[in-house]
Amino acid sequence: MRFDLGEWSSERLTRIESALSQWVVADAPAGLGEAMRYAVLDGGKRLRPLLVLAASEAVHGHDEAALRAACAVELIHAYSLVHDDMPCMDDDVLRRGKPTVHVKFGQAKALLAGDALQALAFELLVPNTNTKAPGIPDRVQATLCRLLAHAAGHAGMAGGQAIDLASIGVALNESQLREMHRRKTGALLEGSVMMGAACGEAGETATRELRAYGSAVGLAFQVVDDILDVTADSATLGKTAGKDAHQNKPTYVSVLGLERSRAYARELLDEALRALKDSGLADTRALQALAVMVVDRDN
Amino acid sequence: MRFDLGEWSSERLTRIESALSQWVVADAPAGLGEAMRYAVLDGGKRLRPLLVLAASEAVHGHDEAALRAACAVELIHAYSLVHDDMPCMDDDVLRRGKPTVHVKFGQAKALLAGDALQALAFELLVPNTNTKAPGIPDRVQATLCRLLAHAAGHAGMAGGQAIDLASIGVALNESQLREMHRRKTGALLEGSVMMGAACGEAGETATRELRAYGSAVGLAFQVVDDILDVTADSATLGKTAGKDAHQNKPTYVSVLGLERSRAYARELLDEALRALKDSGLADTRALQALAVMVVDRDN
Repeated sequence: MRFDLGEWSSERLTRIESALSQWVVADAPAGLGEAMRYAVLDGGKRLRPLLVLAASEAVHGHDEAALRAACAVELIHAYSLVHDDMPCMDDDVLRRGKPTVHVKFGQAKALLAGDALQALAFELLVPNTNTKAPGIPDRVQATLCRLLAHAAGHAGMAGGQAIDLASIGVALNESQLREMHRRKTGALLEGSVMMGAACGEAGETATRELRAYGSAVGLAFQVVDDILDVTADSATLGKTAGKDAHQNKPTYVSVLGLERSRAYARELLDEALRALKDSGLADTRALQALAVMVVDRDN
Repeated sequence: MRFDLGEWSSERLTRIESALSQWVVADAPAGLGEAMRYAVLDGGKRLRPLLVLAASEAVHGHDEAALRAACAVELIHAYSLVHDDMPCMDDDVLRRGKPTVHVKFGQAKALLAGDALQALAFELLVPNTNTKAPGIPDRVQATLCRLLAHAAGHAGMAGGQAIDLASIGVALNESQLREMHRRKTGALLEGSVMMGAACGEAGETATRELRAYGSAVGLAFQVVDDILDVTADSATLGKTAGKDAHQNKPTYVSVLGLERSRAYARELLDEALRALKDSGLADTRALQALAVMVVDRDN
């Protein structure tokens, strides 16, 4: 049966955007909510949320848990962009084709909005159970928090950012570069897949192979990002192109060259697709299509 | 029977410091762990962790859950200080008698260390259950995450900081000032008490009265902070004295005057002690003594 990613995504994106708009609070005090919404809404490919939903569907996961997890990973991603764009970090003024949060709201509010988005991400995962709807099992709530905290923290994204910061102007070899990216972008992408898996009952084999899939897709995403940084223009990217080379940051292109980077991205895609085949899961078409999209995208 | 807070605290502080030193990772990459440890270890009164442990003991809570919750609230407190001290916020160079984190490690690493500390706080609350020790019930883990996220986020601490930021040079009335402080410092102090309570089985009355206690102590803490900001010197405080007046921030002293602020702190103490009496809990002596300490402290 034919699978149409556009059609599949369209319905999920509507749910994700609607949930984000509902959950990212407009009424936070002193303009904080406005900055939080600006950072999150109307932008982004929502790759991470789509990975959460696709993985959850593959294991017949709990729908509300998956939607909350999808929004939570997006909030972590959004907060990391807000902080990463600040003058003391990458000092960037353009993101998703719009002024960055600190340009629009000032640095102090950008800092606080990022902090509040991280807290809100965890808050989404543990909804108050005093409602009439059949709640998300406590075990699932705790597991989702565990996966998200691990992916976002020193062992994951924040740790990767620290390596990134320390690596400006430094010649990394391929394995050091891979270690940096596994944490910086890979951890949250892999975490998205694992959080989706945690919304259902994935067996040992499926869990292992989904992790392998997430890990390969996470790394492929960064390799392609590095390729696009040198081959695409700012308008297509919606952010400043050529930034890494300009900042003298090591990238896959600078370490492997353009052609070998392209070949490596294809290898990682094959690895991801093989893991899905080995997972024993009945329907992984959305996960397959998302992996292809990650490698074939032009922004 | 006589209760000695110094003796009670001493054993708990040893456990807290040892746990923080174990859990705040030295091996986070690229010097991030060093900045995180600098922000957390060897400093601070540990009031929030002591409130967690005292509340947990009052309800015969789960020991490991309480110790993890105690450290988690301290990590949230520590991260908020790191970000609050940064040049784009309060721009302070002295904290606990030492150079602030961004002075010592640079702004980018301070930003990341704060971010990683927030993630680690949640990670501590949901330990991996693949251990032999009798684990913390999933329900307790999820409840602790819920309370911490709420206390730290837009409805709590981060929201209060945003109000604080917007109130520089603005004349707040007493109720606006109370609203700001309920969020900025009160939410995490009240949250500490509620997290301690969540480690055990507090009934409805006890939960309500512990919340009232936490709320009163949280507000009293801020009133006393405002008093000390004008009456103590920097050496005693371990941070810059007179800062609020200098930055033209509204404080209890500026709104109520010194004498009425002192009287208000006593009223809040009475309120806290009355709540403990009404809680029906058998032994609340540590909570009582901590409330007295908050109001009588000189730093």
